[in-house]
Amino acid sequence: MDRSHVESLLDAVARGEIAASDAAERLARLPTSDLGFARVDTHRELRTGLPEVIFGPGKTPAQIRSIAAELLASPGGPLLVTKTTREAYAAVLDVAPEARFVEPAGTIVVRPSSESPVAAVAVVAAGTSDLPIAQEAIATAEACALKVDPIFDVGVAGVHRVLAVQDRLRAADAVIVVAGMDGALPGVVAGLTPAPVVAVPTSIGYGASFGGLAALLTMLNACAPGISVVNIDNGFGAAVVAARIVASRSRR
Amino acid sequence: MDRSHVESLLDAVARGEIAASDAAERLARLPTSDLGFARVDTHRELRTGLPEVIFGPGKTPAQIRSIAAELLASPGGPLLVTKTTREAYAAVLDVAPEARFVEPAGTIVVRPSSESPVAAVAVVAAGTSDLPIAQEAIATAEACALKVDPIFDVGVAGVHRVLAVQDRLRAADAVIVVAGMDGALPGVVAGLTPAPVVAVPTSIGYGASFGGLAALLTMLNACAPGISVVNIDNGFGAAVVAARIVASRSRR
Amino acid sequence: MDRSHVESLLDAVARGEIAASDAAERLARLPTSDLGFARVDTHRELRTGLPEVIFGPGKTPAQIRSIAAELLASPGGPLLVTKTTREAYAAVLDVAPEARFVEPAGTIVVRPSSESPVAAVAVVAAGTSDLPIAQEAIATAEACALKVDPIFDVGVAGVHRVLAVQDRLRAADAVIVVAGMDGALPGVVAGLTPAPVVAVPTSIGYGASFGGLAALLTMLNACAPGISVVNIDNGFGAAVVAARIVASRSRR
Amino acid sequence: MDRSHVESLLDAVARGEIAASDAAERLARLPTSDLGFARVDTHRELRTGLPEVIFGPGKTPAQIRSIAAELLASPGGPLLVTKTTREAYAAVLDVAPEARFVEPAGTIVVRPSSESPVAAVAVVAAGTSDLPIAQEAIATAEACALKVDPIFDVGVAGVHRVLAVQDRLRAADAVIVVAGMDGALPGVVAGLTPAPVVAVPTSIGYGASFGGLAALLTMLNACAPGISVVNIDNGFGAAVVAARIVASRSRR
Amino acid sequence: MDRSHVESLLDAVARGEIAASDAAERLARLPTSDLGFARVDTHRELRTGLPEVIFGPGKTPAQIRSIAAELLASPGGPLLVTKTTREAYAAVLDVAPEARFVEPAGTIVVRPSSESPVAAVAVVAAGTSDLPIAQEAIATAEACALKVDPIFDVGVAGVHRVLAVQDRLRAADAVIVVAGMDGALPGVVAGLTPAPVVAVPTSIGYGASFGGLAALLTMLNACAPGISVVNIDNGFGAAVVAARIVASRSRR
Amino acid sequence: MDRSHVESLLDAVARGEIAASDAAERLARLPTSDLGFARVDTHRELRTGLPEVIFGPGKTPAQIRSIAAELLASPGGPLLVTKTTREAYAAVLDVAPEARFVEPAGTIVVRPSSESPVAAVAVVAAGTSDLPIAQEAIATAEACALKVDPIFDVGVAGVHRVLAVQDRLRAADAVIVVAGMDGALPGVVAGLTPAPVVAVPTSIGYGASFGGLAALLTMLNACAPGISVVNIDNGFGAAVVAARIVASRSRR
Amino acid sequence: MDRSHVESLLDAVARGEIAASDAAERLARLPTSDLGFARVDTHRELRTGLPEVIFGPGKTPAQIRSIAAELLASPGGPLLVTKTTREAYAAVLDVAPEARFVEPAGTIVVRPSSESPVAAVAVVAAGTSDLPIAQEAIATAEACALKVDPIFDVGVAGVHRVLAVQDRLRAADAVIVVAGMDGALPGVVAGLTPAPVVAVPTSIGYGASFGGLAALLTMLNACAPGISVVNIDNGFGAAVVAARIVASRSRR
Amino acid sequence: MDRSHVESLLDAVARGEIAASDAAERLARLPTSDLGFARVDTHRELRTGLPEVIFGPGKTPAQIRSIAAELLASPGGPLLVTKTTREAYAAVLDVAPEARFVEPAGTIVVRPSSESPVAAVAVVAAGTSDLPIAQEAIATAEACALKVDPIFDVGVAGVHRVLAVQDRLRAADAVIVVAGMDGALPGVVAGLTPAPVVAVPTSIGYGASFGGLAALLTMLNACAPGISVVNIDNGFGAAVVAARIVASRSRR
Repeated sequence: MDRSHVESLLDAVARGEIAASDAAERLARLPTSDLGFARVDTHRELRTGLPEVIFGPGKTPAQIRSIAAELLASPGGPLLVTKTTREAYAAVLDVAPEARFVEPAGTIVVRPSSESPVAAVAVVAAGTSDLPIAQEAIATAEACALKVDPIFDVGVAGVHRVLAVQDRLRAADAVIVVAGMDGALPGVVAGLTPAPVVAVPTSIGYGASFGGLAALLTMLNACAPGISVVNIDNGFGAAVVAARIVASRSRR
Repeated sequence: MDRSHVESLLDAVARGEIAASDAAERLARLPTSDLGFARVDTHRELRTGLPEVIFGPGKTPAQIRSIAAELLASPGGPLLVTKTTREAYAAVLDVAPEARFVEPAGTIVVRPSSESPVAAVAVVAAGTSDLPIAQEAIATAEACALKVDPIFDVGVAGVHRVLAVQDRLRAADAVIVVAGMDGALPGVVAGLTPAPVVAVPTSIGYGASFGGLAALLTMLNACAPGISVVNIDNGFGAAVVAARIVASRSRR
Repeated sequence: MDRSHVESLLDAVARGEIAASDAAERLARLPTSDLGFARVDTHRELRTGLPEVIFGPGKTPAQIRSIAAELLASPGGPLLVTKTTREAYAAVLDVAPEARFVEPAGTIVVRPSSESPVAAVAVVAAGTSDLPIAQEAIATAEACALKVDPIFDVGVAGVHRVLAVQDRLRAADAVIVVAGMDGALPGVVAGLTPAPVVAVPTSIGYGASFGGLAALLTMLNACAPGISVVNIDNGFGAAVVAARIVASRSRR
Repeated sequence: MDRSHVESLLDAVARGEIAASDAAERLARLPTSDLGFARVDTHRELRTGLPEVIFGPGKTPAQIRSIAAELLASPGGPLLVTKTTREAYAAVLDVAPEARFVEPAGTIVVRPSSESPVAAVAVVAAGTSDLPIAQEAIATAEACALKVDPIFDVGVAGVHRVLAVQDRLRAADAVIVVAGMDGALPGVVAGLTPAPVVAVPTSIGYGASFGGLAALLTMLNACAPGISVVNIDNGFGAAVVAARIVASRSRR
Repeated sequence: MDRSHVESLLDAVARGEIAASDAAERLARLPTSDLGFARVDTHRELRTGLPEVIFGPGKTPAQIRSIAAELLASPGGPLLVTKTTREAYAAVLDVAPEARFVEPAGTIVVRPSSESPVAAVAVVAAGTSDLPIAQEAIATAEACALKVDPIFDVGVAGVHRVLAVQDRLRAADAVIVVAGMDGALPGVVAGLTPAPVVAVPTSIGYGASFGGLAALLTMLNACAPGISVVNIDNGFGAAVVAARIVASRSRR
Repeated sequence: MDRSHVESLLDAVARGEIAASDAAERLARLPTSDLGFARVDTHRELRTGLPEVIFGPGKTPAQIRSIAAELLASPGGPLLVTKTTREAYAAVLDVAPEARFVEPAGTIVVRPSSESPVAAVAVVAAGTSDLPIAQEAIATAEACALKVDPIFDVGVAGVHRVLAVQDRLRAADAVIVVAGMDGALPGVVAGLTPAPVVAVPTSIGYGASFGGLAALLTMLNACAPGISVVNIDNGFGAAVVAARIVASRSRR
Repeated sequence: MDRSHVESLLDAVARGEIAASDAAERLARLPTSDLGFARVDTHRELRTGLPEVIFGPGKTPAQIRSIAAELLASPGGPLLVTKTTREAYAAVLDVAPEARFVEPAGTIVVRPSSESPVAAVAVVAAGTSDLPIAQEAIATAEACALKVDPIFDVGVAGVHRVLAVQDRLRAADAVIVVAGMDGALPGVVAGLTPAPVVAVPTSIGYGASFGGLAALLTMLNACAPGISVVNIDNGFGAAVVAARIVASRSRR
Repeated sequence: MDRSHVESLLDAVARGEIAASDAAERLARLPTSDLGFARVDTHRELRTGLPEVIFGPGKTPAQIRSIAAELLASPGGPLLVTKTTREAYAAVLDVAPEARFVEPAGTIVVRPSSESPVAAVAVVAAGTSDLPIAQEAIATAEACALKVDPIFDVGVAGVHRVLAVQDRLRAADAVIVVAGMDGALPGVVAGLTPAPVVAVPTSIGYGASFGGLAALLTMLNACAPGISVVNIDNGFGAAVVAARIVASRSRR
């Protein structure tokens, strides 16, 4: 896309329709527009085939509303605001009345995909306390036109619970595993399914869990190959990885 | 597979061909055989569709040879020994004369896939010092029937080098990015390709790189979504993730 | 138990009372039931001979009530909710009016054992500030039918205080030692008693105590052998270890 | 300056105008005056050519007002109070009615330089969430008579946004780059400009960002040479470094 | 023992057989003898009912021989030297010709118990690379008259391997689980057995295993209760905990 | 004292005034009394010649009052409660109406020494933000009959301020240096005085100060010998070290 | 430069001298050439005005020779190889017979600048043990046409040594301060000079210096503003920052 | 001393014997002489009353010889070289034939004090493995004219061993406690003596001792007040603190 854009610009120069200096200027300015405080990257979706996200913390509701409005001004795919508040949701409703709020996850979803899902992702949560992060992953995955199979409360302390869902784990195109405390679940799951496993450590725990560090290290050192890991509490990121896996496939 | 195995066992019980107590015994013993010192998991390939690996450190050449011999006794897919030595390679040659040794990576490859590659994986290395880990990833990926596009020495300090290979990054089904020191490359790459990016931090660096910790943290905190991370220096693991992405696709 | 269950299922298949496919289905589903958000592991008590616990943080009172109700629906041993709130206690009272709340510890106890204690556990606390965690251990131990000898405020700064209780330490079947700050007490205690010592670091302290990390490291490096360690502030876990020690004995 | 002061004192001794013992006393007391609780260093500006700063945290508004009053009693350059509150601002207004408050940054500016700027500093912020720290840097730089070119929201996830501002980066005498999360931006910027790059990690992020540690390590390990780093969230410090760069030049 | 010793001393004082000042002197000197460089604690066995250990690192072979000779001069239980070398073994043979050397573990065993084992301990190792530490645990346990059931190579990546040995795990009086890398095995084992689980993290791994820290944190955060943890690579300590569990039982 | 107590007890046994078994009992119980929740160590002052302290955090006002009452029931030296609240002070006033509260430090002082000071301690604070910890040190030192020379706001950024007080630093018998942020002051001070320097890192700072860790490490690595370090924010502990230095001297 | 290159390319397209598709191709390939294993960034010097560096560790002498040869093939500024060996130096001599080796620093210098120095940089080392890193900085600075004033062994433990060189510190255009152990020197220096201070922590020290981490944290938290910090042992990087400061000036 | 020196200089100026500019020059140069690579601080002893030390690591034998020769050229107190090698000792013998080498500690002692000891210091080592560091402390203390009472192998695992030496601990003017692993000994000792306790953590241990970090944290968090801590393995520093304590006293 970028390339063809550049090529047609150069064609226009060759045909004398656009001056060389104007073309130089346009090339320099191509991929961004400028809000003053936020240089919205409206071309990133074209480059990467995926939705835009606004990371909530440290931004005022007014800033979130402005960035959202700018992004929604041009046609495009889904837009998410993550780790945000009900106040930011109210502000976003001004510019996107159809926006949905996933409460425990603090996720705002706008313009979710309406395409039929082409692939299934299992989202596995080790414990009930891990549900908010699992729900962030699910909201994101569904916005990206993935079909989600939610599998909750299957911690390794009762490993039969994991075995009981083995067929569903094998049927998924990708498996997202959300776990806090010891973070041992992805290693067991990866031994039971041929699908790629995206592991999400959560900050659930206390004492020597050190805010999710223990779970993160466990997952990085998992003996079973086929696991990769995202940031602590990053359900959004795990779902985007899953969406890229599927998108990559559907391009063929 | 497992399930059908269990069902035929149960059918045999129903038909009276196998006693209930014998079936119970078989169910208990189903998935493993026992070497005394190593309980080789010959069924894992069936469960996960991927090759077996022997992790080299802490094992004697004799132990590696024994485990390799046991694994090669039954038909199956590729076998790799990682982070190992020329001595272990000599020992493996006893039981697998066709074994290949990838020297800088310390990887032994036995019984690589002979299927035609169905997908292409770009393996990107930030600097020349990161090549051994990139080569571990490449050897693994090729053993798993993936076609590899190697892209070396494209660190972010000269970001034009990354842009220059943008088309190849966009063409890949998955991108493995290997980087030490600041580990910033995967975040730039993920903004340029729609493919899933598997990031491998390396232990290359000094001082505050803390053996790869700095690169690991950078990758986990990457602003561009679509990145997941494996352990420091784990080129093998990144390739298996890529192989699972492709294998998952080809099952459809 | 599991095994005999499986064997009688297989006998039923052999007798033709149950179809093979039904048996396969039952085997798959055996160990868990499904609440939607929490896959309660009602068989774990059978496998491990110990009570169920609901970890409080990150769960709403309503979720805790639902999980408690499910667990109490079948007969069984004690149920504890740990590190929880008075609000959660109020919710649990709806389904277990006899539930008891141990305030400083934030522990809810339901259905404590009514068996006579078969063994004595000394619960030693280094300082008054460590009492809440010691009380979590005591509540758990008593719910598991252990007799508790509480020994409080015997820090190593006045080592004569420890020596003064030497006889009680020697009389216990297991000794739980709860200590924050320098965490030095278990090392002294283990030199004075032949009983296994379960050490509980607490988060009491400031500055370089780093939330209990200092005490944890001290205990792991204790010179006196015979000490093992649980997570920071995990009085519950220490008591379960003690209960397993005794339960293991009484099986003989 | 110090030296000439000492030399004129010694001349006075040589001329008999000042007694040797008085001179010894004066030499000992030279550089400070004494408030009782704060030994204000009124000579530091002479020694270092830069403004005085009051670090806000841990000081009461009354203490801040007293220190400010003492500093403003003698003629001098700009005075800043950093990381402080609206309450402290109200207190400072008592002694400096013209003081300005930069709200999101929590910075009070008194007696800003009125000289014409002799140099331009680009202040680059990776994301909107990093703006408060960027504004601390901007307020400080402007108080020190630097011209600021603010460049916001140019994170590496959309590297074209960085390239689009390449000319402005090359035109600056120094570039301050403020970035949280992965902190990768300074490494890309330093590859695009010949100016010295002062990197400011911010505490923006979550999970494995560990309060800015991840960004800090990334910046210290940046592959592109020409980067130096200040403390997490230290926009003030980065601006002083830039001011010293320019001041050093203008002394020639 | 101590108490009765003191009481008979006091009786002798009461009977006038011993002067009060002599008794005071004896009380002060009671528990130790003095080698000059090592104050051997010959009374510790009486106080704790367990063998003496000489920690090898940092001691010369000559020092180890001297301490061993002193300890063997009085009758007593087993003596172990841990994490030591073949050179130290040669030195110990001078004073204990029957000493045995467990090579991979670097453990010297002198005067092992000849009592019949009263209890069985399962020693479970996750991988072949963890065997040296498992062997340190086994050598120690056998010296303390425990019967050992060794269960090797049952990592969680193939969880069926763990399930296949479930009966042996349930039959043990205590289970020692030795695991490096992700350290996830104890959490799975504790869900399958009612016995107390003593977890030993090993330093096996690379990258983000940080010398066993990852495995240690995993085990401390294990979701399954009933686990306690010893220091990284401390197979000796785990076996002593197991021996105390059994010794405590047999005192009844 | 202890020894003479034991000797007179033994004399009484020798004279038949006390039965041997009673004496054994008394020996066991000698050094402590028992409050139920706090085993007050009334003999520690005799053993160590210093005041008792109640560490405030984690204790209720009622608990603090009870422990204080017990300690004040017998004659003795000063009693301090550290890091506590105005509520605890109110409770202590019930049992010690003359108690004094040092507000910013959160220190309660009861029964301060009325002896004339025999030695002078300089308490140096790097910045105004470090004053609360310096005041904890001063209140403790004065309660222990030390004369305090307070020297505030002499940070190394203006090293002339430190040199200006060189004579006072040289005149002190011990120097306590309280510093946060970079913690560099003790290293400079120790080069200017022959007195022992007790360094107190404070938690003042932000970003990479990591709650005082940076200052702590600086002080431990100080190039100037003659410095020893106490816990972060432990002004109390530094003063007790100073008091021991002086007390040790006055015993001669 | 880049821009004018692009503009002349576009002019050629406008004049029909170059086909649009060829121009697109050239634009894509502009900034790099390709060695197969190393994508040498020959345009970086143009973009940043500074020399190229080859980071030694992890590269074979043959790889270093190849990269050096490629870089020296086109005219340009200085080339350095850092943290390398005598073997690599021998290899580089093949392609650059005039190369110089700075032994303790392990630095190879090729094609140093022959311009007259336009500015003076003071390179201050706290102790003799810090000299190798100071020499890496000096070799780099001199290669970049800076005049170096070396000031060695002026640690803060004898602060008069620092004051004695105050005039030289004030005369420099930039000051590089190299210090290990407590890393306190830059904070003192920055209070004595108006020049920007670039601080280099070294790994000199032991125990709680943690390989330079203590010095790094001290420098990041320095109270004196005007300091920025590079990686531990990064003398090269500090000199490049200094060179950029001067280069930036000389562009005016 | 310094002051009187300055005053006589000023008197000379007043008398016209020295020109003001010469005096200014001398004042600037007063406290140091310049070796080129090492600015030996010959006045520090006068300022601090203590010996000079050369920190061995990172210095060549030739550098150590030169610095030693310079220091020995003027009369003065003891000189030590710490953590050095037999090679450096050979080099020092060239300039100080009477130098003594304490082998396990790697300490060279030159010109030890010949004054009669005025005070006694107890040096307590927890285990035989801690002896080298204890010997560094002893060699330093004896060089500074302190009488040393060595007390070895009294770890807290056998707390009676500590109690047995209680009288010697109470008799000392200062107590140095050297301990690795759990570092618990100083806390017990400080409860038994009124003397100031200087704690030295050692790097003895393995696994979670993290090179002495565990012992360091234990000591910083010790419950018994009266303890201060020096760097890991810093026996030299502890002895200098003890010498300052005594020196401070003898000045009265």
